Order: sequence, then structure tokens, then C-alpha cells
Amino acid sequence: MNLIPIDDPQDLRVAAYLDIRERDLVGRHGRFVAEGKVVLDLLLSTGRFTAESALILENRLTGVQGILRKAPPDFPVYVAAGEVMDRIAGFHMHRGILAIGVRGAAAPAEILVETLPRRALAVVLVGISNHDNMGAIFRNAAAFGADAVLLDRTCCDPLYRKAIRVSVGAALKVPFASFGDTAAFIATLDRLGFSQFALSPRGATDIRAADHSARLALYLGTEGEGLPRDLLARLNTVRIGMAKGFDSLNVAAASAIALHHFSNR
Amino acid sequence: MNLIPIDDPQDLRVAAYLDIRERDLVGRHGRFVAEGKVVLDLLLSTGRFTAESALILENRLTGVQGILRKAPPDFPVYVAAGEVMDRIAGFHMHRGILAIGVRGAAAPAEILVETLPRRALAVVLVGISNHDNMGAIFRNAAAFGADAVLLDRTCCDPLYRKAIRVSVGAALKVPFASFGDTAAFIATLDRLGFSQFALSPRGATDIRAADHSARLALYLGTEGEGLPRDLLARLNTVRIGMAKGFDSLNVAAASAIALHHFSNR
Repeated sequence: MNLIPIDDPQDLRVAAYLDIRERDLVGRHGRFVAEGKVVLDLLLSTGRFTAESALILENRLTGVQGILRKAPPDFPVYVAAGEVMDRIAGFHMHRGILAIGVRGAAAPAEILVETLPRRALAVVLVGISNHDNMGAIFRNAAAFGADAVLLDRTCCDPLYRKAIRVSVGAALKVPFASFGDTAAFIATLDRLGFSQFALSPRGATDIRAADHSARLALYLGTEGEGLPRDLLARLNTVRIGMAKGFDSLNVAAASAIALHHFSNR
Repeated sequence: MNLIPIDDPQDLRVAAYLDIRERDLVGRHGRFVAEGKVVLDLLLSTGRFTAESALILENRLTGVQGILRKAPPDFPVYVAAGEVMDRIAGFHMHRGILAIGVRGAAAPAEILVETLPRRALAVVLVGISNHDNMGAIFRNAAAFGADAVLLDRTCCDPLYRKAIRVSVGAALKVPFASFGDTAAFIATLDRLGFSQFALSPRGATDIRAADHSARLALYLGTEGEGLPRDLLARLNTVRIGMAKGFDSLNVAAASAIALHHFSNR
């Protein structure tokens, strides 16, 4: 392992870790931050993204050695004491495990879906703008073996630091890509033989009764407004049956139920 | 309506609303804070808790008049301008809708379960210490018509401000109560004819195949450690089938899947 002690918070080699919260807001020029042991493990083992370096609290190093060995031998592992690490990050880093990943070139969703297997489950997100919901949906997508997450341009970034953390690293595992024109994308999935379902509280069919093919796309919209009306008109709409007087479900909870249901098809 | 203008943030009549975040931590002597239109509506309409007063931003008053009429005519509705409200609360209250509720005497869980209908779905929580998860579980419990939530003594407070908010008011709707000795409580539910299931990643039966009676209790534990081993040994254990290599599900997401499943029995 290429262990590099860092004593000076201003050391240029750890510049990518400076002022983490402030940098969340302005962006990282094609980089993202992975936090914690489980997320670091996924970053280094899935191979979906290139890891650039890690910054580890000195007393956490022993616990992550096995994981760090999954990186190339020359992979820089910066090691710092607690006070130095906190001054780099700009706040108290109690977990003490950070890494920088490289986004790489983003393939358009139209290309990603061409690569999906004959039997596939795709999640299509429209207007999901909350990072907690984004992370939770990715976690559920990974738990139920979804093959891809496709996002319209109004969705927030799955590689935002908090989204990755809430996803427990699933955002680094499940392939995702963005599309522009929703109507054209629906036509693409249609051509590829996907049964396309939009989840909506006023869906025409109970999800338990939804008839579908081996390739399935599940559309989820924002919690308040739901999916746009013109989109609902183009797709099969399904609902999750709820109690009278409280038909309110968080979009991440709805994704868990729907993905669990369809994962068993 | 009993509208009372408030111009002075130090007015003793709104003392219960002072420094909301700080008071979250030290407690409110048998009171709780409800925020937002939907939660206020549930507080005033379900009748489970007594509302003591409301504090409304002056420009939000028109939008909540219909809801406030559900309160008794003498119910105090304090009305304040934005700056005054922010100084009372101690931070910027962009929603502008607050109310104080009274907890009332807490009935033990052993009493609450005696009142449940012949056909009943009860959620039993052991060690749920995160207010987001607590709120989300209540929201799912309400959405899928659970009749009660029973909590062991290590659970956090469902009437904590954030838990109520995340529950979208479900914590003010679904009856809940605490129990002390878990083994004795299991025996009580057993005597009352409940099929008792513990959700666990290593559960013996897939939840889809779980055989149960008209009365059903679903046990959920903390995300990290799960339910205690001695408790799992006493109950039927069920699992939610997940993808290989990522068998990780948030406890609130798991509750959504399990409650949706059992609500259809």
C-alpha cells in the first residue's frame, strides 16, 4: 500500500478533500466523495468508477486495510490524525474514511438501455430532486437487483455526497444515466420491448395485478406533484393500495414496495 | 376563531414556542410541536391528542382557516408577522404553521392491545432510535392501516418534532404505546391470538409465504444490529428476499414492504 502521512491540512495532495460541505454546493469538477467503510469497499470493488485517492484517519487504518488492498498498489492512501483530518474537511469527521472518485464520461441513457439483458428491471426517475430520496431509491434498486436507473434532466445528482451515503454505496454500483426528452425515451424503451409502468396514487391497476414482460421499466415521480400528466397518459399506471384517509407514501418507500414486487417476477 | 395577534416575541402566551430546536433536546413537559398544514389538520381532526394552541404566520392564516375551524371556538390561534415568528422559534420558520399538543397520560401497551379489533395489524418496534426511521415507520403504518404501534423502552419518541414531521402526522393518528419486558409482551400478544413475525435478513421464511391469522404482529428492529437473538428465537422469523451482493434495506423501507404485504391479507 502507498501510505502517505499528511501533517499539514493545506498540503496540496489532499486539496480535493478541503472544505467538504462547501464543495458539495459548488461541485468538484468531475469528482465525487465517498464516505465510510461500506461505500469505500463498493467504490474499489465494483469497478464502475475510478478511485483517485483515499484519506483515512490514522486509527481507522487497520480496519480498512483489507478493503484498501482492492485498489492498485500505487493508489495513494493519505493518512492523517484526527485534528488534521477535521481541519481538512472543515468539520468533525467521526467516520474517518473518505475517498475521491472520478465520474468519467457520462453515457446517455439511450446507450445504457441498449446494453441491458434480455430480462431486465429498469427504474426511471422523473423530477426526483431530494438527495435523501435519490439515495434511498438507489439503495432499494440495488437490494432488488435493478439493472439500471435512468434519470430525466430535472433529477438531482446520484453522486452528490449525501445521496451516495444514503444509498450505502448503491449509487456506485447500479448503472445510471440521464435522458433528455422523456417522450423519445419512452419510445426507445418501447422499441426495446419494455413493459412500462408509472407508479401513481391514482394508478389504473393495483401493482399486484400488473401484467408485464421480462423487460420492465418502473417510472417514479416527485412526491408532491407526482409524474406529469402527459407522461401518465403514455404509460400503464399502477397504484399501491393504501388505507382510506391516509394515502400518503414517501417515494422511496413506494420504490421499495414496487421493486420488491417486480423483483419476484 | 379566537385570533390573538402577537407582536412581542417574549409574550408569555407564546412561551411554548420559544427556541424550538433547543427545546427539542430538553423536552416540553408533556407537550409536543406539530408543524405544517397536513400535520395540524391531523392534530385537530383525529382527536387522539388535545391541541393547546396554534401559532400561524399572518400571511398563512387564510390558507389554514378551514382547518382551524375543526378546533373549539375558544382555541387560541396566535398570529405573528414573519420576523416575530422567526424570533420566537429561534430560526426561520418558512412554513409558518405551528401548534402545541398535549401528550396526555400514556396507556401501557398491554392495555392498548386489549382494545384491538378481532382483525388487527400491530407493529412492534424494538430499539428504533432514529427519528427519521420512527417517523417513516409511522407513515407506512398509517398508509397500510396498522391498528397500533407498540414500542419497547429503547425506542425513541414518536412525538419528537422531527418524527412527527417525517410521519406527515401519522404519529398523531396511529395509536401507540410502550411496553417494558419484551418476553412478557410476546406472551400477551400470544394469548390474544396474534401471529407474531420478526423481520430479519436471515428470517426462516420468505415474507410472501408467511402463514398467519387475522391478528398479526410485525416486529422490526434496529438497522445495524437487528432484533435481539433471544427475541428471534421466540418468534416466527420472516425475510424480504434481496439481490445477492447487496442485501441491505433501510428499516423504514422494510416496514413499507412488510406492511403492504400484510395489509392485503
